[in-house]
Amino acid sequence: MTAPDWLERNWGRWGADDERGALNYITPEVLCRAAQLVRRGKLYNLGMKVEADAPRTPNRLPTIRTTRFRTSRDGRAGGDDYVTLNTHGATHVDSLAHVWWAGRLYNGHDAERYVNGFDGARRNGIEKQGGFATRGVLLDVAGHRGVAYLSHGTLLSGNDLDAVARAQGVEVRPGDALIIRTGWIRGWHETRDRYLVDQPGIGEAALPYLHEKQVAAVAADNMAVEAWDPNRVAHLHAPLIRGLGLMLVELLDLEAMAADRAWESLFVAAPLRITGALGSPLNPLALT
Amino acid sequence: MTAPDWLERNWGRWGADDERGALNYITPEVLCRAAQLVRRGKLYNLGMKVEADAPRTPNRLPTIRTTRFRTSRDGRAGGDDYVTLNTHGATHVDSLAHVWWAGRLYNGHDAERYVNGFDGARRNGIEKQGGFATRGVLLDVAGHRGVAYLSHGTLLSGNDLDAVARAQGVEVRPGDALIIRTGWIRGWHETRDRYLVDQPGIGEAALPYLHEKQVAAVAADNMAVEAWDPNRVAHLHAPLIRGLGLMLVELLDLEAMAADRAWESLFVAAPLRITGALGSPLNPLALT
Amino acid sequence: MTAPDWLERNWGRWGADDERGALNYITPEVLCRAAQLVRRGKLYNLGMKVEADAPRTPNRLPTIRTTRFRTSRDGRAGGDDYVTLNTHGATHVDSLAHVWWAGRLYNGHDAERYVNGFDGARRNGIEKQGGFATRGVLLDVAGHRGVAYLSHGTLLSGNDLDAVARAQGVEVRPGDALIIRTGWIRGWHETRDRYLVDQPGIGEAALPYLHEKQVAAVAADNMAVEAWDPNRVAHLHAPLIRGLGLMLVELLDLEAMAADRAWESLFVAAPLRITGALGSPLNPLALT
Amino acid sequence: MTAPDWLERNWGRWGADDERGALNYITPEVLCRAAQLVRRGKLYNLGMKVEADAPRTPNRLPTIRTTRFRTSRDGRAGGDDYVTLNTHGATHVDSLAHVWWAGRLYNGHDAERYVNGFDGARRNGIEKQGGFATRGVLLDVAGHRGVAYLSHGTLLSGNDLDAVARAQGVEVRPGDALIIRTGWIRGWHETRDRYLVDQPGIGEAALPYLHEKQVAAVAADNMAVEAWDPNRVAHLHAPLIRGLGLMLVELLDLEAMAADRAWESLFVAAPLRITGALGSPLNPLALT
Repeated sequence: MTAPDWLERNWGRWGADDERGALNYITPEVLCRAAQLVRRGKLYNLGMKVEADAPRTPNRLPTIRTTRFRTSRDGRAGGDDYVTLNTHGATHVDSLAHVWWAGRLYNGHDAERYVNGFDGARRNGIEKQGGFATRGVLLDVAGHRGVAYLSHGTLLSGNDLDAVARAQGVEVRPGDALIIRTGWIRGWHETRDRYLVDQPGIGEAALPYLHEKQVAAVAADNMAVEAWDPNRVAHLHAPLIRGLGLMLVELLDLEAMAADRAWESLFVAAPLRITGALGSPLNPLALT
Repeated sequence: MTAPDWLERNWGRWGADDERGALNYITPEVLCRAAQLVRRGKLYNLGMKVEADAPRTPNRLPTIRTTRFRTSRDGRAGGDDYVTLNTHGATHVDSLAHVWWAGRLYNGHDAERYVNGFDGARRNGIEKQGGFATRGVLLDVAGHRGVAYLSHGTLLSGNDLDAVARAQGVEVRPGDALIIRTGWIRGWHETRDRYLVDQPGIGEAALPYLHEKQVAAVAADNMAVEAWDPNRVAHLHAPLIRGLGLMLVELLDLEAMAADRAWESLFVAAPLRITGALGSPLNPLALT
Repeated sequence: MTAPDWLERNWGRWGADDERGALNYITPEVLCRAAQLVRRGKLYNLGMKVEADAPRTPNRLPTIRTTRFRTSRDGRAGGDDYVTLNTHGATHVDSLAHVWWAGRLYNGHDAERYVNGFDGARRNGIEKQGGFATRGVLLDVAGHRGVAYLSHGTLLSGNDLDAVARAQGVEVRPGDALIIRTGWIRGWHETRDRYLVDQPGIGEAALPYLHEKQVAAVAADNMAVEAWDPNRVAHLHAPLIRGLGLMLVELLDLEAMAADRAWESLFVAAPLRITGALGSPLNPLALT
Repeated sequence: MTAPDWLERNWGRWGADDERGALNYITPEVLCRAAQLVRRGKLYNLGMKVEADAPRTPNRLPTIRTTRFRTSRDGRAGGDDYVTLNTHGATHVDSLAHVWWAGRLYNGHDAERYVNGFDGARRNGIEKQGGFATRGVLLDVAGHRGVAYLSHGTLLSGNDLDAVARAQGVEVRPGDALIIRTGWIRGWHETRDRYLVDQPGIGEAALPYLHEKQVAAVAADNMAVEAWDPNRVAHLHAPLIRGLGLMLVELLDLEAMAADRAWESLFVAAPLRITGALGSPLNPLALT
């Protein structure tokens, strides 16, 4: 288990009632400067397709979409769809109620009191965080290392991330959304059976870096931002979400953006405001 | 029925294979200029909460969200949710496959061939349009007329919209997302029983305006962008979507934005890329 | 709260591992004798239609059914449906994991250990009880009292039930499924707004009767078998399910059966074997 | 394609409005005699568990079950579940609206008029057939041939079925539910990859037998009752359902029943009365 102080690192930092965590780092100035980065007029859809065959953990079943339509005698026709999906299937963002520890959510909110299967989370639910937009800094770790994807079980430290940033000539600043490319998404297509095992990602040694840099969000093209250790599944989620109040955005498709070396962008995340949800499916955008 | 030429007005304009319609008006220049509008660093969530009690048409049943979680003996806990929802419930965007007429979708794609309940729409599905960002122009019609909300059955013409734009001192330009405030969303809370009847919105006389202005999208705080005529439900959807290839964004919450008189913004819509879907739930953002 | 001894009345009666409760009263002899009651060759569907507008508690949202189909060029066509429904919506049976108290399910199984949102109930789930068939004894309380439906808040005691049985000339025996008609289902159509308030049903004074008669199941045409006290919602569920291990079957349509005065029948309940579910939608049958 | 006369063989036989088809063969006498078969007092659940890992065709996604519960301060607790499932996933019954041909459902009802994705089937939907109970005749073809399961692609003819009936000493009579054991369900566990390919089952040469014997329903432990020919998927469904109006019950677990050589039983099927559905999940019971 992570050292206990990490598990409530940012509690109280933005007031006892706060439910937005590190999004508070995104000041109006940060947002305005980020918008200035849109100089080419290009938009990247970073969300993967939402369909039965999308990457997801095995216990999050495929999205079901059923389309219904009706045709009138005069030729007019139209329809809609129902979808049943997991809020953490395919590309998604974790809410600050996604994980807890010792009965406490981020900022000390009482899980026993505020979370149940009927209401979902009455504190820290995804509708409390809502959409956010800030500077996105793509760290193409796989590209930097000259590999298609990082090898199994790679644990990225703060130094590792810093090395990529330096090589790319970008500086990480408060309020940034860090976007980490491991290349691992290719593993879904090439090695589906092994996909969930030993995913590369950030390790415990990245915590101080993320904290000191005061990033608002961390996005990645793997399943959990952190490396996937089958024996300690998502064990860094507690310090990241509960302790730091960080937004984690997972299962992104970063291939086109990396090919363009789009290191800096206006990163926009607009989770559905599902009352009480522990996360939301998402199509994050990067504008350059 | 609308004059037939409106029903295929923009077909072929962007090539025979096009599935993005009026989004093609958003050139890189349009996007870059729109990003320059972010000067205050403020973000508006224009999506309503996604929950059982959200505005929707009666035949689109409430969103079901079920949260599940698990607690380990060492105190670690976490969960996720399943949601079942209609792609046109609460705030949403219509895909260019939402309606058709005489067996043809926007741009002439064959509905019988490309749409069925198993696959959804294999042409013009929402994943083909994807996210978009452009200049948002809020036309606060209710505010302009000094009423809480437009009276029942109000049909807005191009002249009506133009009058608001002039009064607000804004000019509508190619590629813009027009954001029309009728104030009607208050009707959901005040007069729920009548909510669906005689909603104010754009009428047939707005078609030439929208076409000539070359707008990319029309968003509104009512159910269908167009006025809701119970005898001809959504009859303008055919010229708007099938003919002009316009993105319609519906059921927005524009109250905060209007209170700030945020006439111009960077409007961002990031529909989930649900393969084959006729629309997507959405949390549109406006950045100023 | 019911006297504590009622809350674990039948624990251990059928062994420490039992997950079938009072269904154990249905011996092979009971089933064989019940089958002999089929003399007219008539079958009653006691399940209500499963649709958006079916009776249910407000926090159990309507069933969503979406039908999808496909047509081939040679004229062959066909389809299926997806349904999203609550296991306790419309006519259903409660599993022996539906309620618990002080962390214990029926027969003492540990709720904290065996129930979570991912797995459902790993003890006492509906698949552990499965289908059952036994003698059904219809007690038409409303008919006996000469009213369309029992008045609001009526609490039925053992004596009340016994009086109806005597008047109808039937004797309740071990293993029987008691089928109680309050007439209340008419309230759904006549007084929907009041439907959930003060429903008539069995009261605490019926517990000894049900226990001594050794019935296997209690079915009724109201929402919860027991009377619905808004201040103590379903407070008898704990002694009935957790204590006695009784199967409760709710929201039946008994009108045709009562019109035929079909006091005795072969009652058949075949819940879907949904692994871990706290109940199942059901179409109970009565054969006479 | 099957000879055209098979495709409307029983149309009009039970009146122009009929929506119950071969269930009409189950007269009160048939039901009464079937009930007399309950002599041992044993009940078989023939439904497979409804869960993510249940047999189903690939385009029918796994059942999603989410359990939700709430605990009060006084220790009272309880919950329910939502399930999203395909009406033809796991063990199920096809409604008489499951397939059609040349725009006509069983008994000539107009598919274009009566079936759409919003309403489902307004003719022949599963709620129109409802529950049924009749004599079940188990034909253990695999057991008769001394194999664990019939070899791939086996097509059973009327003579094949007759041979099994003779060997077992049972006679098939009007109104019976024929229950065919291929043993194939073992294939799900042993050879999942091949499961859907070349399933054994009844072939075209069984049609006259089923018709002349006037059976009401055919149940089997394979996917589609008929053999599964990947090049002509479910091509006998049209003569069986549309032509003969037969109830098909699929994906049963017949292992325990066959081990007991329970050739005759009271077979009970109680589909959920889902308005407009093309089928229903089911837990069929056999009582002996």
